[in-house]
Amino acid sequence: MQTSPLALPFPDAPSIDGVALHIARAQYKTWDRCDLTFVTLEPGTAVAGVLTTSKCPSPEVEWCRAAIAARTAAHLGCQPSDVFVSSTGVIGVPLPIDKAEAGLDAAFAAAPCGWEDAAATIMTTDTFTKGAVTTAVIGDRTVTLVGIIKGSGMIAPDMATMLGFIFTDAAVEPEFLQAALSKANAPSFSCITVDSDTSTSDTVLAFATGKAGNVALADDDSVGADAFCAALADLCHQLALLVVRDGEGAQKLIEIQVTGADSDRSAHRIAMSIANSPLVKTAIAGEDANWGRVVMAVGKAGEPADRDTLSIRFGNTQVAEGGLALSGYDEAPVAEHLKGHEIEIGVDLSLGEGRATVWTCDLTHGYISINADYRS
Amino acid sequence: MQTSPLALPFPDAPSIDGVALHIARAQYKTWDRCDLTFVTLEPGTAVAGVLTTSKCPSPEVEWCRAAIAARTAAHLGCQPSDVFVSSTGVIGVPLPIDKAEAGLDAAFAAAPCGWEDAAATIMTTDTFTKGAVTTAVIGDRTVTLVGIIKGSGMIAPDMATMLGFIFTDAAVEPEFLQAALSKANAPSFSCITVDSDTSTSDTVLAFATGKAGNVALADDDSVGADAFCAALADLCHQLALLVVRDGEGAQKLIEIQVTGADSDRSAHRIAMSIANSPLVKTAIAGEDANWGRVVMAVGKAGEPADRDTLSIRFGNTQVAEGGLALSGYDEAPVAEHLKGHEIEIGVDLSLGEGRATVWTCDLTHGYISINADYRS
Repeated sequence: MQTSPLALPFPDAPSIDGVALHIARAQYKTWDRCDLTFVTLEPGTAVAGVLTTSKCPSPEVEWCRAAIAARTAAHLGCQPSDVFVSSTGVIGVPLPIDKAEAGLDAAFAAAPCGWEDAAATIMTTDTFTKGAVTTAVIGDRTVTLVGIIKGSGMIAPDMATMLGFIFTDAAVEPEFLQAALSKANAPSFSCITVDSDTSTSDTVLAFATGKAGNVALADDDSVGADAFCAALADLCHQLALLVVRDGEGAQKLIEIQVTGADSDRSAHRIAMSIANSPLVKTAIAGEDANWGRVVMAVGKAGEPADRDTLSIRFGNTQVAEGGLALSGYDEAPVAEHLKGHEIEIGVDLSLGEGRATVWTCDLTHGYISINADYRS
Repeated sequence: MQTSPLALPFPDAPSIDGVALHIARAQYKTWDRCDLTFVTLEPGTAVAGVLTTSKCPSPEVEWCRAAIAARTAAHLGCQPSDVFVSSTGVIGVPLPIDKAEAGLDAAFAAAPCGWEDAAATIMTTDTFTKGAVTTAVIGDRTVTLVGIIKGSGMIAPDMATMLGFIFTDAAVEPEFLQAALSKANAPSFSCITVDSDTSTSDTVLAFATGKAGNVALADDDSVGADAFCAALADLCHQLALLVVRDGEGAQKLIEIQVTGADSDRSAHRIAMSIANSPLVKTAIAGEDANWGRVVMAVGKAGEPADRDTLSIRFGNTQVAEGGLALSGYDEAPVAEHLKGHEIEIGVDLSLGEGRATVWTCDLTHGYISINADYRS
């Protein structure tokens, strides 16, 4: 698989005190690479998570979770409930537990590895390793946040469909870590879509080891809470966009900004309607300033919209106002913008103050090839 | 453009008394074919219609409608409000009114033509002419219903996105014709999707000339009303499926039957979630019995569903129960079924009595080629 043209290099991320990464070859498939990561977290680590909203979460995940948690708990001398398990694969086909167990044993024995090695083990149709790093100052301590993530297809809202893991040495009370993660999730993972398909196994987990020694963050009023939340939000934003950059078949990253909607919620729905429109996504793949398809996607969202007050721009160039083409707009900068890898579509509804920004990628032959060009 | 492998031949449809078809070359594009149809209907014809639910219906349609209606009214000596206009084309690009007017003048002078000629004029990315015919007995008269339709891309629910025209010689009061059309629309045009994109110009119009001489149908209790409504429903069903058979890039017609849902409405939403899932549609394109993607699409619909009571079949073969693969199910008939052109996916939720059937097509390279492989 060719690396996405939208790939970013894996960042230079420092180790996080209290976190040790171990990887192994479970050999789930015939590939010759590590495909299992085992992370140990020192006692006292706070955990938070956001999970898929699918009404049909995968049963094999539950099944694997129990078996693997038991084995890992026995190894570490902890409780199975202290073990978190994530996996991906063909829905309905259970992970081969014998391979998982053998892989775990190998990982227990393996020397610690770096972030990028761990990020590589969780790749499936991903074409590049994805990680991000931020820092925040809490009182007199600088804390570090590192995240790794996988995701490429079956990516849609309702938390975004992928596996993401965030680690920090900050001391954070679990309730506040959960609140901060949920808050950071809303404008990041919940604002991306590759194909509108929501996975059964979406998971983002955040772990805070507390090794930085700051006074533990307990609520919004804690010293440094704002800085930590901003860093976490920044990290989630970076990770979410990496997933879109590795969208199956993606050649272009598309940012859709909706303003002037009836409410933020309405703006989000309209933005997602545009982001999930196959005709908008194929138009961008074709480098076609087909703003009529954007009007179509606004219209089908079912949210308040008035064609006659609708303005649309590509990049910085206004192309339509009042639902009609701006006569004599300069097509050259638009064509130039659409040739690039990062596309911006702006839609102003001129109805209210609601706004939202979401990200998606174009829909190309690559997506079809990955998902249809095989026979079972 | 190659004809869809799912194409059906244009039916042998008789003329409808009171309806005269005239076609002409407006030459909207460089194509060498008729692209404008003008239909005259004798005085006393009842009219009903269902239109797009888009919040942004196309302004150029309104604009064209006024100009063309005025010209046609002048020609016929009727009121502009007696003239109905439909058009399709790139959203936001007004139909060239000078070409439309010249085409109309040519059509006014043209000899009457047949149904298939008229069906051909309204094609865009359609690959075959689409028509259907049914009859019904009302009292001592046999009435005929003929419909022609176009539609291939930008096809989604909320009335289904296409132009359809239905003609009958039955005598039907306008209010009852509207009620019958709205009722027939629900399980037909509103139950198909090609790409989840709802057009700004969807239109289905029904015309009843009354020339069959039956006692006019006024309500459900009129003699023959049931037969007429059944024939109209059958016609709409045929026309709707023709649109899916000509879905952009379609290689397979997919019927999705959802049973055991909480309600019919819930079943419809779940069925549409499956029908609009790019991953389900690409799996079918790949002839892959990937029922896990069906589970995913059920789960993301946001409707009541319980993975552990979920059964899924392809064709007549049950492949999953309780959210897990049926051990040892016979893959041979499933593979054989998926190689065909007409695919049936059955999902039973085992929750209630709600049921729905919808139709879609697979998602192939053809769709991408049609919608992305060009530069503006």
